[in-house]
Amino acid sequence: MILRSSPASPFGRKVKMAAIVLGLMDKIEIVVTNTLDPDDAIRKQNPLGKIPALTLDDGTTLYDSRVIVEYLDILAGGGKVIPASGKDRFDALTLQALADGIMDAAILQIYEIRFREEDRREPKWVEHQMGKVERGLDALEAHLPHLSPVPTIGSIGVACTLGYLDFRFGETWRNGRPKLAAWLIDFAARYPAYAETMPR
Amino acid sequence: MILRSSPASPFGRKVKMAAIVLGLMDKIEIVVTNTLDPDDAIRKQNPLGKIPALTLDDGTTLYDSRVIVEYLDILAGGGKVIPASGKDRFDALTLQALADGIMDAAILQIYEIRFREEDRREPKWVEHQMGKVERGLDALEAHLPHLSPVPTIGSIGVACTLGYLDFRFGETWRNGRPKLAAWLIDFAARYPAYAETMPR
Repeated sequence: MILRSSPASPFGRKVKMAAIVLGLMDKIEIVVTNTLDPDDAIRKQNPLGKIPALTLDDGTTLYDSRVIVEYLDILAGGGKVIPASGKDRFDALTLQALADGIMDAAILQIYEIRFREEDRREPKWVEHQMGKVERGLDALEAHLPHLSPVPTIGSIGVACTLGYLDFRFGETWRNGRPKLAAWLIDFAARYPAYAETMPR
Repeated sequence: MILRSSPASPFGRKVKMAAIVLGLMDKIEIVVTNTLDPDDAIRKQNPLGKIPALTLDDGTTLYDSRVIVEYLDILAGGGKVIPASGKDRFDALTLQALADGIMDAAILQIYEIRFREEDRREPKWVEHQMGKVERGLDALEAHLPHLSPVPTIGSIGVACTLGYLDFRFGETWRNGRPKLAAWLIDFAARYPAYAETMPR
């Protein structure tokens, strides 16, 4: 299988961490992709031009990260990083949605800088996105994700989100959130996949 | 169950159409939500402040639309709008991801207008999002979603996307895409849920 991604993509990292935890990394070839290059093959495989995208041996391409993770989980036997059913499943999936939403709001702040000159950026928009990040982090501080022997896609997603904030915005998310800061240290100590997928 | 949404939200419409198809609409109370109002209860139930969000009788809130649809599908017996397993499941989920991605790119164009004065909008950003919409629609024109007796969440998502483009951008998406235009007419004729959830 071919995974198109980039080292800095937090959604790509989520897939890579899941693949490592599921013991599937040796079946996946990673191809580095530039989503802003109109000639990059990604726009053929995923018309949205977004990473990550996973091309299977039969030529089918799966996206986005949630779909890929579910596919890998089934490939590994099912019910591993995504609990198979019941409340545990929907807790993990909603936690993943929260983490994805924080990442989306953080990425939109980065795009604000990449796509616009300084005098054309819109503070109201940046604050609206920052509000999602702050409220999301506060909710995580109040209800830390449970860490199980095999991490769920919810806690993997949260770890990717916090790692992305570290990478792009520095350590300030830790201010006033000591429990979440300690949680990430614990996560990284338990699961080597966190260090193995760290963006440089 | 309480579904927080708004009449114009295409992601909310996706959940409503799925609920109608699954015969669950009489179990759901819809509460109209303004995501831009800081005092709206949505920011307590979903820290991201996004709709749709489904609050269950035990007080748990599920989000986003994909998670809610999967929950409703299981509640209706499973394997209805989301095929239970195999290639059919991942085809439907990837098609849903394509539809969601087109909707996201269309919504970002609307937000460009809502959040910014005309002289501060960024054509490069709008074109980047429009490119996702155009390539996504071209891919759908080339590979029309299969219509089964019970629609999958993939085709429901595509119908919501096209309905949203009609609602916000008018009919121009049909130019050069006669098969997709005919597909939507067919979809609306087969499934009354399309007309029942039409934004006004």
